[in-house]
This record gives sequence, structure tokens and C-alpha cells, in this order.
Amino acid sequence: MQQPLTEEKVFKDPVHNYIHVQDTIIWRLINTKEFQRLRRIRQLGTSYLTFHGAEHSRFSHSLGVYEITRRIISQFERSGYKDWISEERLLTLCAALLHDLGHGPFSHSIEEAFEMNHEEWTCRIILEDTEITDILRDVEEDFPRKVASVISKTYEHEIVVNLVSGPLDADRMDYLLRDAYYTGVNYGTIDIDRILRMLRPYNGRVVVKESGMHAIEDYLMSRYQMYWQVYFHPVTRSSEIILRQIFRRATELFHVEYPFRFMIEPLLDLFQGEVSVDQYLLLDEALVQTAFMQWTLEKDEILSDLCSRFIHRKLYKYVEMESLNTEIIDEIRRSFAAAGLNPVYDLEIDYPTDLPYDIFHPGEGFDSKQILLLDRHDKLREISEVSDIVRSISGIHRGRYHLYFPQEKLKKVLANLPSSIAEIFAR
Amino acid sequence: MQQPLTEEKVFKDPVHNYIHVQDTIIWRLINTKEFQRLRRIRQLGTSYLTFHGAEHSRFSHSLGVYEITRRIISQFERSGYKDWISEERLLTLCAALLHDLGHGPFSHSIEEAFEMNHEEWTCRIILEDTEITDILRDVEEDFPRKVASVISKTYEHEIVVNLVSGPLDADRMDYLLRDAYYTGVNYGTIDIDRILRMLRPYNGRVVVKESGMHAIEDYLMSRYQMYWQVYFHPVTRSSEIILRQIFRRATELFHVEYPFRFMIEPLLDLFQGEVSVDQYLLLDEALVQTAFMQWTLEKDEILSDLCSRFIHRKLYKYVEMESLNTEIIDEIRRSFAAAGLNPVYDLEIDYPTDLPYDIFHPGEGFDSKQILLLDRHDKLREISEVSDIVRSISGIHRGRYHLYFPQEKLKKVLANLPSSIAEIFAR
Amino acid sequence: MQQPLTEEKVFKDPVHNYIHVQDTIIWRLINTKEFQRLRRIRQLGTSYLTFHGAEHSRFSHSLGVYEITRRIISQFERSGYKDWISEERLLTLCAALLHDLGHGPFSHSIEEAFEMNHEEWTCRIILEDTEITDILRDVEEDFPRKVASVISKTYEHEIVVNLVSGPLDADRMDYLLRDAYYTGVNYGTIDIDRILRMLRPYNGRVVVKESGMHAIEDYLMSRYQMYWQVYFHPVTRSSEIILRQIFRRATELFHVEYPFRFMIEPLLDLFQGEVSVDQYLLLDEALVQTAFMQWTLEKDEILSDLCSRFIHRKLYKYVEMESLNTEIIDEIRRSFAAAGLNPVYDLEIDYPTDLPYDIFHPGEGFDSKQILLLDRHDKLREISEVSDIVRSISGIHRGRYHLYFPQEKLKKVLANLPSSIAEIFAR
Amino acid sequence: MQQPLTEEKVFKDPVHNYIHVQDTIIWRLINTKEFQRLRRIRQLGTSYLTFHGAEHSRFSHSLGVYEITRRIISQFERSGYKDWISEERLLTLCAALLHDLGHGPFSHSIEEAFEMNHEEWTCRIILEDTEITDILRDVEEDFPRKVASVISKTYEHEIVVNLVSGPLDADRMDYLLRDAYYTGVNYGTIDIDRILRMLRPYNGRVVVKESGMHAIEDYLMSRYQMYWQVYFHPVTRSSEIILRQIFRRATELFHVEYPFRFMIEPLLDLFQGEVSVDQYLLLDEALVQTAFMQWTLEKDEILSDLCSRFIHRKLYKYVEMESLNTEIIDEIRRSFAAAGLNPVYDLEIDYPTDLPYDIFHPGEGFDSKQILLLDRHDKLREISEVSDIVRSISGIHRGRYHLYFPQEKLKKVLANLPSSIAEIFAR
Repeated sequence: MQQPLTEEKVFKDPVHNYIHVQDTIIWRLINTKEFQRLRRIRQLGTSYLTFHGAEHSRFSHSLGVYEITRRIISQFERSGYKDWISEERLLTLCAALLHDLGHGPFSHSIEEAFEMNHEEWTCRIILEDTEITDILRDVEEDFPRKVASVISKTYEHEIVVNLVSGPLDADRMDYLLRDAYYTGVNYGTIDIDRILRMLRPYNGRVVVKESGMHAIEDYLMSRYQMYWQVYFHPVTRSSEIILRQIFRRATELFHVEYPFRFMIEPLLDLFQGEVSVDQYLLLDEALVQTAFMQWTLEKDEILSDLCSRFIHRKLYKYVEMESLNTEIIDEIRRSFAAAGLNPVYDLEIDYPTDLPYDIFHPGEGFDSKQILLLDRHDKLREISEVSDIVRSISGIHRGRYHLYFPQEKLKKVLANLPSSIAEIFAR
Repeated sequence: MQQPLTEEKVFKDPVHNYIHVQDTIIWRLINTKEFQRLRRIRQLGTSYLTFHGAEHSRFSHSLGVYEITRRIISQFERSGYKDWISEERLLTLCAALLHDLGHGPFSHSIEEAFEMNHEEWTCRIILEDTEITDILRDVEEDFPRKVASVISKTYEHEIVVNLVSGPLDADRMDYLLRDAYYTGVNYGTIDIDRILRMLRPYNGRVVVKESGMHAIEDYLMSRYQMYWQVYFHPVTRSSEIILRQIFRRATELFHVEYPFRFMIEPLLDLFQGEVSVDQYLLLDEALVQTAFMQWTLEKDEILSDLCSRFIHRKLYKYVEMESLNTEIIDEIRRSFAAAGLNPVYDLEIDYPTDLPYDIFHPGEGFDSKQILLLDRHDKLREISEVSDIVRSISGIHRGRYHLYFPQEKLKKVLANLPSSIAEIFAR
Repeated sequence: MQQPLTEEKVFKDPVHNYIHVQDTIIWRLINTKEFQRLRRIRQLGTSYLTFHGAEHSRFSHSLGVYEITRRIISQFERSGYKDWISEERLLTLCAALLHDLGHGPFSHSIEEAFEMNHEEWTCRIILEDTEITDILRDVEEDFPRKVASVISKTYEHEIVVNLVSGPLDADRMDYLLRDAYYTGVNYGTIDIDRILRMLRPYNGRVVVKESGMHAIEDYLMSRYQMYWQVYFHPVTRSSEIILRQIFRRATELFHVEYPFRFMIEPLLDLFQGEVSVDQYLLLDEALVQTAFMQWTLEKDEILSDLCSRFIHRKLYKYVEMESLNTEIIDEIRRSFAAAGLNPVYDLEIDYPTDLPYDIFHPGEGFDSKQILLLDRHDKLREISEVSDIVRSISGIHRGRYHLYFPQEKLKKVLANLPSSIAEIFAR
Repeated sequence: MQQPLTEEKVFKDPVHNYIHVQDTIIWRLINTKEFQRLRRIRQLGTSYLTFHGAEHSRFSHSLGVYEITRRIISQFERSGYKDWISEERLLTLCAALLHDLGHGPFSHSIEEAFEMNHEEWTCRIILEDTEITDILRDVEEDFPRKVASVISKTYEHEIVVNLVSGPLDADRMDYLLRDAYYTGVNYGTIDIDRILRMLRPYNGRVVVKESGMHAIEDYLMSRYQMYWQVYFHPVTRSSEIILRQIFRRATELFHVEYPFRFMIEPLLDLFQGEVSVDQYLLLDEALVQTAFMQWTLEKDEILSDLCSRFIHRKLYKYVEMESLNTEIIDEIRRSFAAAGLNPVYDLEIDYPTDLPYDIFHPGEGFDSKQILLLDRHDKLREISEVSDIVRSISGIHRGRYHLYFPQEKLKKVLANLPSSIAEIFAR
């Protein structure tokens, strides 16, 4: 039942102009309630508090990932590359589309707070009797399992896995373009047409024709800039920290049977650590924001303060430090406590880090994160062997420690802190 | 206390590139909880269900309106136009920024459902002891009243009112550009730099230098296209209809003391028709979506069905009709009832209409909705007198009747409807 | 010998991003000297004197027309429309690519001045033993004739002719987009992806699916705006007038055997009215500009003045008049002569006009300039029957008379003109 | 006589949207014949043979440099920075506008071929009694000298020189943006608004506020990519090589009194090495192209072949070599000669190179090519001290040897070359 639509359907999309749906199965998947739920999960979590334009959802990103994958496959088929397995077209498209299905509200923070994993949730939603499962079963009984195995990277045909999650996958390309578009920063503008034209299926991997090297350099640069300008922006980190503290405090209160003025089922299950698929699907950012809004009125001062900070965007300030060790941290916490601050909630330490591209280690073979170039003689080389600029940036490690804290509270007690500690925060 | 900031602050904005804040008062207003609340109200209501990119908030639109107004004033001041009152700069900027402050969640639908008016709410929030009020009072005791009177169009200096809400105001220019950007349609791309350069303050009105006529023609065309392509899109209307039906059903149930499984304060107040400013500020789209999500599980079938339709985007279908009268409508409703459909909830009639530009009626003087051109001899003429194309489109009235209905339900009973009725819906 | 290239070649293009060449024949045609000559002919003639960005050549436009045609055909083939003749693919592509091959330098002006016709020249270059002819003959002996007959609209298969020159042809779409891009005006931004997706081959014509109506409305509006903002811009007309006057003066001088300090062969042939294909191919804008530059040093004052005006951009000024008749014109010329001005060279009258779209006359059948919509029931309707906005603008006729003249010269004798004439020019 | 215009004039520009002219002097300078001549000199020389969109002139670039400079100064004045000398506004604007005035046709190649220098020519045109000189003298008698001294970097106020030609000057910013726009590559898209906002005049230099570091990193990356993707593109180099060979051959022929069928004055002067300002101003790309076109018909086979190659774009092919020394080169030339090839005209060696950014050498002070960051404590640091990414790319040296040759000719004699030589060219 792998039927094409009698007439192609399109979605108007600011990034790709149009998203083309050509298969009945894809069309039906998009119209399930599980997929529509992604409209209520923002692609960039709390980044909209830093870049007000970044209010786009995982729904639009998922359509974008599907569309790029569709174009790659269509290019593979038009060119008749023999290393592409054309029977796997629909499977690959489904996996690309559904890839982010399991993301929860403010995904990164909630996963950290409750030790969840969105990939596992994606697989559960695909496999545990949802509208999605039913539609996939219409392809073949075993199709849900196949899709899930592509997402969990265990599917037998490596080329499919590599297309859906490799170093040059559609996911990364769409988010760079889309996040650049919605934030308004122009670092993420890559030449996607050229990159797509240069991709080749080769021995189970998606590699790049050598003449596409410069486009890849530009892509890695863009990625690097987006990480530091957008994804690791200290104001965004500050809002994520508040978010995690809210989850931490609410869990603490839950375990001491604090009488929340607002508490509904999927949150209860979350605090208990036992969430069913049905309950999980009720979780979205609307619910989280509603809970936080209601909790601004809670009696527990820590919770209500944190929630007000999040909802009304009164975030923690930060200072940057080149180096830091556990002794200094302990000292700070001790002197915070002595001065009447909360050593846990009034200080948070963050160390964002990203290696723009991991260098090739000769003799170790190609690992799955490497970008490989294919030359005229069908020889593969890892990109940092060939590109000076990729080699140059491969080792760069730019993280610095950031200390986040409530400025007004700290100001009041600044005089009570040891001067060595005070001066850290006094700038 | 009209202090400039020691250093200009900027917001990165995809539409205007940067939004420049130069006054302490503006900066403080943006950071109030009342203004931050606009982040949780979408600019285009339910349009995101038609154009998935249109997830932008009234927060970003309000910043945009402020920015355009700032540029207009800055041009007026640079050029030294004598009809501009430079003392009114801060007042105008505050009114531009706060103009949409009173919008509720899914504004148009909620206003219709509960007979509210966002302009009144804007004035209440400005005047009734909020963080906003406090900051405005720092300018002068009477400043909140002044800002509110600009918004309610009663302020003494007409030029200020005209700048904030006239036929060429910053509000319209920002929303055309912004809605085009986020939906991805390219009908809204107007040459804003040129339009702004052509604006002149003249006798209490903002008029256009004659040589800017073509840019205005283009602006009116864009406006026309955006109305029909985006704002009146039948899928969006369908979702608004569902929304209004949910509010209607919930109110009915509320008045018969139906035991909602989910009901919290600001909603109660809304159903009772008595909302305080404090309660109003708790209302946002997160809350409305959360309520609807919870109500998908209600026992009342009408309410749970409508909520599922909205949340999971299973909207009503529609048919278009050139003409329609109350007799036909009554007949349809009767035969729906006879066939077991709900004559109220299973049929909704919509008649969207917009006049692209109201024509000038000679001898009647210039009314406040007209766009006036200023020629070299300082003579004013209404634009449709001069522009063939504006005159041509002025009379166009494009509305058609749309009948919305639940397709699956209707299909089941189609055979039971009189054939004259059945064929309307059978296409 | 209709061979595909072993690997697709691309040209980087600012308008279409990439232009894809897939056939050996197309690749070879682009690399002929006749096609390369188009690099030395500007797409917009003298418009670069008004819009400095508009320096793009007919070479880039021709590639663009080819690319759009390629995409239309590829869509037709992908969708399997039965009214498309797939054997005509290469013929259509060649005709689209070569369509403008015969354009001379500053085409419109030179054609008027020397009564030439670029379409005829295109056919001659295709047919008379050039590199182009040789390559086309490699397809089949009769192929040059076929290509020429498509261009002269006499080819037997109407659908091919309609694709290459119809009301929705690739030529118009490319020039709107390209001229908007290079001038920098944003009136020409049409949604080409949507338009292309809506095109259907139908009974020998390219028609539009009814749901594409709004995209076509927008296209016609853009076209209208581009005509009045760019193509008919009075400064551009002024430079075209100077150009024609130069050609006129030089021809006059040639016929009285004036000893030009600079004169080379293809120009001689041009003045004599006998140009061979070989000589024609030596004509380009570099040559014309070089001649004009050299002629700024000629002894004939009229010629040297006109050439200086063109080369150094000291153009004629203009006044607009609502109405004008031959009597007034005669009177102006007489009083010019009496005041010592040159009645021929010091006054030029221009009346630009364009009907945005010609209205449908019921009962007369569909003519080849009409845009036809195809509804769900396969019924054709002319667009102005269906679209209010197209009907509204169909009759608009916006031309006004423009009088062009050398301002400094006229100023000096203004006092000697009758006051009724003087006041026309005195503004 | 430093008069503002009664009404600001604008030029529509695709890159900056509008270019604003506010001073009578600037307006008059633009309308001189010397400045208008820049319309006939392409900004990117022969690059249009590689990127067909790159047909833009130095005229539009010069306006762009003026506009960026105007914005920088306007920001300096609005912010009231004390290290800016506001009396130097007009001087700086004039120097920015006129900066490229002396460029000849296909500037880089002609300068190499005839040992000329465009900066010297700029100064001569400014100083030696042209329309430009007259207008500048209207400001003050000494003004032409001042403008020339800014351009030759000897003007007394360093900040003016640094603005017009420093590592972050308007020239570089405009050409990156403009060349990216017209070629269509998207590597050159820098965040110019942000960069401009971050510039500060400081002790005679334009430096960058520290928080602008990432925008500068992005700018340096873009510059690096544009060099390698556009400016050093091997096809462009090939056309430049042909160009230089034409000039070389024509000069040789001139010195042996070869009877050119086409030869006019400014070319004669050029070959003689004695060009007056008047003759220089007659030189433009139209003339050079016309000469080359006529020379395609010359009897000298070397000249006519080279000219045909240039005009009809039949360029030399190239091979890349990692290393090369004079012995190998000599051997190649010898074996070329032995095989009947021309050892001078049939082989050209090219070694493009660019250091993306020169690293800081501690202890040596800041040189004028370095980009300096200004921190909160008014301390200056060279950017590569602070930015990992700039430091990483500073040392990169990417040049490779390219050997250019006429492929068809070489193919014919390949068998006559020693196999070690043949295999270099045989790929």
C-alpha cells in the first residue's frame, strides 16, 4: 500500500518555499494527532526569550527534514546511483518525517530534569498503537519496527540510517537554515542546493563529491557560528537553567506532598517517573507554560519566584570565567549560604562546549561522524585531510564557565560576601 | 524623566534586521510582565494551522510597530518638518509599542465569543495600576492617560493619533511585512524604505508625497493579496469557527453547571463575564490550548469533539456559494436536524469581505481612512483621484459565502438529506 | 544525436540559483560565439542609466529562459500530462535558449532607427551557416528550420510555440524576476514555483489550473508595476531618445558623405542598410559605445553634443502633458525654430503605453494573448471573467505625453518663446 | 560651499536598497563625466566569464562605498564619539566616493601589462583639471589635494585615511556584499548593520567594540570564502591570462610597427607608455572589447587567436600542481618548443595566494592591517589574540600552482612530448 497521491500536495514553507508531499502514507502521517502535537513544541526551546523571532515549532522543522530527504533521494534516483537502494525510499522518508516525534516540551531541559530520552519516546510512539502505528502498518505489518530501527540506528541497510542521522543529514541542514531564518541571524545561510547536488551514496554512507568541498567548509563554519551565536547564547542558557530549577523544585515539593494549587495528570506522572504513551502525548509547551503561570501564585517562594522569572522573563544574570574548579565552586556556595542566599537555587554553573568538527585520526578508519570526500578516482578522504580550514577549526574548543545568579538578590548581600567572591559577581 | 539609554539596545529581528531602543522608558516597558505576556499570544491567531510558519507572536509585531514609528519620527525630525510636534516623540513611541497590549488569546474569536474589545483592554492595562502604569507615571503623572487617549483616538494632537492608527500606520506596515515573512508568501513585500521616505506630517495627518504614489499602489495591492491569500484563507476561517463553537459550547455548559474536569479561574471569570485586569493578564494561548487539550477528554460529546478537532487539526470542510439567503439557510438547518445532525454545531456560515480601499466621494471632505497625496504645490488629493489602479480596485467586493461542516458526519447521512441540499455538500 | 551529458553542468545564477544543463546540444550551443555575443548586449538597453544595477546581459536572461522552460517541461513529464508531446523537449529547449539570439546593441532603439527586427535576425543566425547552425544540424538536418519556425511562431505543434512565446512564457517570467533583481526594485517578485506548478498543457496551449488564479493576478500586477516603474521610466526613455537621435544624425551625415573620424565596417553596413550575418555578429554594445565615445570629438556639433550626452549621461529633461495634438506640436516646433533651437533634435515627444492585460471579448473565442484558467471540470475560462482584479485593471491605459528637451539650451532662449509655449517648459 | 541638498536624492541600489545623497558636492561629483566613466569599467574584470551575473560596474561599487562611509560617519556623529573629527565629514565622503576613479579597463590585467597603478591615476584625475577638480575646488582651493592625499594615505588626520582604506573599510564591505549579490554566491553575506554599529573611532583608527567580535569573525570567513570561490576562480584566472597575453602580443607587434587593421589613439598612447589624463579617460572596457573584436580578424595568428579566445570565451584549460620549480618549468617550455608549441604563449603559470588574515606578532605594536578590538576598559587587543577562529585561519596559505594551456593545440602534439611532461597535461 505504497500509493502515490493522485495529486501532489504542498505546504507553503518560508525556508524551502514549498514542501512536496507525493505519497498517501506521508500525507496521512502528517495528519495524525501525534504529528500535529509537534506544533505545540518549539524547535528551539527557550531561545525565543533571546531571539523573539524563534517561535517556530518542531512541526515545521520535521516537514523541512522530510523535504530535504525527499530531494536527496530524488537526486539519487534521477542520477541512478547504484549504491542507493530504491526500495527504501518510503522507509527513509517516514523515518525522516517522524525522527523528532518524541520530543517533549522544552526538550533539552525536561530530558535532563527527568532523565528521559526523546529518541526512545519517538520509538515508543511509533510502536505502541498510536494513529502513527496504524498507518505504518498499512504499508506492511513490520513497517513500524523498521522505521523505529532506522531512528535507533540499528536498521540493516546502513545507507538509510546514514541519510537520517549522519554528519550531513537533512536534520542538521534544515535546522541551520530554519533557525537562521526565524532568529534573523544570517550565519546559517548555506548553499543547500549545491550541497545536495554533491551528495553521493557510497558503500552504505552518504559522502560528498570532492568538488563540493568548499560548500561543506561553509556549512561547517555556519554550524560553528550558529552554535555560538544562537544555540549557546548565555541568555538562552539562563532561561534553560531557570527551567531546570523549576522542574527540580517542583519534584522536591511533589515528594514532600506539597499541595500544589495547580496539578494535572501528565505532570503527576512525570514527577512519579512513570509516563504512559497516552499521558506523554498530553504533554506540550502549552501545558508547561500554564502550570508555570499558575505556580507564580504558589505559596512556596522558591517555586513561585522561579516561575515568575520564567514567565515574565526576569532571568538570572551571568559572569564568565576562564577557569573554575570544584574548590572555588564549593567556596562560592559556602559563602552564598553564609550570606543568606540559597546555595543551590541562587547559583548555577554552565559550561557549554562544541567541537566544530572532530578531526580525523589516521589509521583508525572512518567513523560515522566524519564527513568523507569522494575524489575522481573513487577514493575517499576525510575532509580535514583535504581542507585547511576544516583542519584549522577542528581542534577549537571554546567553552568558558558561566555562573548564573539572581542579580537583585545578590546585590543586597554583596557586602556580606568575602571580597574574593564578591568581585567575581561585582562587574 | 525622559532619559535616553547610555547605550542604544537592539533586538535582532528578521523583518527589520534590528530594532533600536534608545529610551529608558521604552526599555523598561518592554521588560514588564504585561508586555512579555504578548509572547504568549500569536499575531495571526489560528493561521498557523494553515501556514505552519505563522507562529510569530504579538510581542514581535509590537516591537516592529514601535521600530517603524521610530523611523518615521526620526525622518520627520531629520527633515525638520514643521507640522510634526517634536515634544510628542516619546508619547507616540509608547502608544505604538503598547497599541496591542490588550489582545487576548486567539483575539478575534474570543472577542466575538465574549463581546470583548482589545482596545478597551489595552487602555485598562495602561491605566489600572500595572507595571506599565508605574513606568508611564515616571514620565509624568498624566502620561498613562495620554497614552490611552492616543490609542482610543481621542488625544488632542491629531498627528499623534494618525501616526498610531491611520491608513498608513506602522501597524499595517509591520503586519504586512511580518506576516508575509513568517507565512512564507511573498505578496506582502512592500518597499517600506521608500514609503517611509515619502511620508509627510501635514495639518494633523500623515500624508504621502505625490512621487510616492506607486509605492502606495503597491502597498494597497499587497494588502489586498494578503487579505485574500492569508487572512481570509478558508482553512483559517474553519479553525476560527471551531474555536468560536468551543467557546459557545463551554459557555452553555457553564451556565447549566456542567462539571468540567478542567476549569481554572480566569476561564471561570470569562464565562461569568466579569474579568479583572489581574485575571485577564493570566489569560494566554497556552492556557486556552491546555483547557482544550484537557476538554478533549470531557464527557460532553460536542465539547470533546470540537476540542479534538481544534487540537488535532481535524477541521471542518467547506463549500463555496455565490449567493445565499436566510430561507435556504433555514432549510439546510431543518434538513440537517431531520437527518440527525446538529443544526447549530454542524453548520456554520461565513462571509469574509474586505474592500481593498474605500473610494473617495467628492464633496465629502477627507475622512480619516483615506490616503492623501501631497503635490508640489502643497495641494492634497485623495489617492484614488490620481491612481487609475487604486480607483480600479476600490470597488471590488470579493466575498463569497462559505458553508463549513464536519465532512465525515455529513457523509453518513447524505442519503437522508433532500437532494437539493445534498448536492450542495456533495462535491 | 540527442545525447544527455554524462554529468549535468550548472551555471550559478542569482535569480534561479542554478541553471541545469543536461543535454550535450544545449551545452554546445551555449559555447558558440554567436551565443557568447549576448554577453555584450545588455538585457535592459539603456536602463542602467536610470537603475545603475541593471547592467545584466541578454546572455544571463537567455539562460534563465532556458532554465524556466526546462522546469516546465520537466513538470509536464513528471506529471505525465497527455497533451504534452515529449518528443519536442529538445526542440523547445533550443528555441527557448536561442529566442533572443538576434538582438542587436540597444535593441529597441536600433531596431526603430534602422527598421530591423530581432526575430528575423534570430532566424537568420540560426539558419545561415553559423556555429549554431552546425550544432543544430547534428540533431537532424532539418532541425535549424524547426527551431526557427518555433521562434517565428509557424511550427506545426502549437504547444511548442505557446511555451516559447505565449502570455505565460518563460521569457516574461525570467525578465520580471531578473530585472527586479538587478534594478533592486521589488515589484517583480512573483511566486514562480507556484505558477510553474499550476501550468498545464491543454489542446496546444499552456493554461493555468484554476486554483493558481491568485498567483497569476499577482504576476499581472507585478508586470504592470515593472512596466511603469522600470521599463517606461522617463529617464530611460530620455536616454533612448538620445540614442535614436544619434543614429538619425549619423545616418544623415553618412548620406552626405561626412568624414567621420571614427567609422568601421559593421557601422558602414548598418548605415547602408545592407548587413550580412557575419557583419551583424560584429555589432555589439561595446562597438556602439566606442563609436559614440569617439564621436564626442567629431566636428559636427549636433552629433558630438548628442554623443557626449549619452556617454557622460547629460540627458534631456522632460515635462509631462495630459493631452497633446499635432497642432500644438507644430506650434512648439515653429517657436523653437524661431528662437534658434533645432526643431528636430531639441524636442522629442514620447507616449509610452501598456495595457496591463487585454480584456476578454465574449463570443470572439480565445486569442493567443489571453490567459486561460482550467477548472475542475476541464472547462476553460479567460482569466478576466473570473478575477475581479484582472478585470479591473484590464482597461487601464496610463500613457501620458512626455516632451523631452535639452534644458540648458532651452533656458537660454526661454524669453524668446511665446509665453504659452514657455510655460510648458518653465516648471 | 559645503551645502546640503534642499532635498535628499536617492539611488535605488540592490545591495543597500537606497543610496542617500545629502550634499550638493557629492551630487555634482557623481554627475561628472569622469565618474560616469566608471559605468564602463566592470567591478570584477573578467569574472563575468565565470559568473555570468557579475556584470556590475565600478560605478555602482563606488556609490556603495560612499553609502557605507556615510552610514559610519552618521553613526559616529549620532553617538558623539570624541575621536571623530566632524569637520572631516565631506572630505571623507569625497575620498570614499572617488577612491576607485582611476581604475582602467580590466584593471588588474592592464596594470600588470603596462606597469600602471590605479591609485596614481585616481590622484591625477582628481588633481589635473577635470570636472572633478573644478567641483572639489568649489569647496576650497586646497580640497583636491586633500582628497588625493587621503587616497594616497598621506593625509594628516589618520582617522580619515583609516576610514577610507583600513582593514575594515567601506570598500571591502561593499565589494563582499556586492560581488556576492551579483555572482549569486552566498558566501559574502555579512551582517553589515551589526558591524557598522560596532565600529568606534579611537586614536586615529577605526576599531571594533569587543562584543562585535563574532560579526568580524564571520566577515573574515566570508572574505576568505569569496577569495577562493570567486576572486581566484581558475576560470577567471584563465581569462586574465589571455588578456595579459593579448596586451603583451599587441605591444610586441606595435614595437615592430605591425600594421594593425584597428588602432586608435588611447591604445597607441598606452603602447607607447605615455598617456595623458584626457587620453586615459577615453579608455574603457567598451574600447578594449572593440579592439579585441576587430583584432580577431588580424593577420597575426597569435593575436587573432588570443582575441578570439577572449571574445568568444574559448579559454585555456588548466592543471593544478602541488609544487613546481624553475627547472621543471624550463623543461616544460623546452619540450613545448620542441613539439612545435609556442613556449611563451602556450603556457602560463599562476600561483594565486591570499592570507585570510595576518596574525599579530606580539611586541611589534599594531600595524595598519590589523583589526583591533576595544574592550570595556578601553584596552585594545588584536583580534587573533582573542578569537580562536581568526587565530586558526591566520596562517592558512592555500595557493597551488596552476598551469594554463590551449587544450586542443596541446592534444595534437601530446605524443611528441616526453612522457613525464605529457602526463602532467594528460588528465
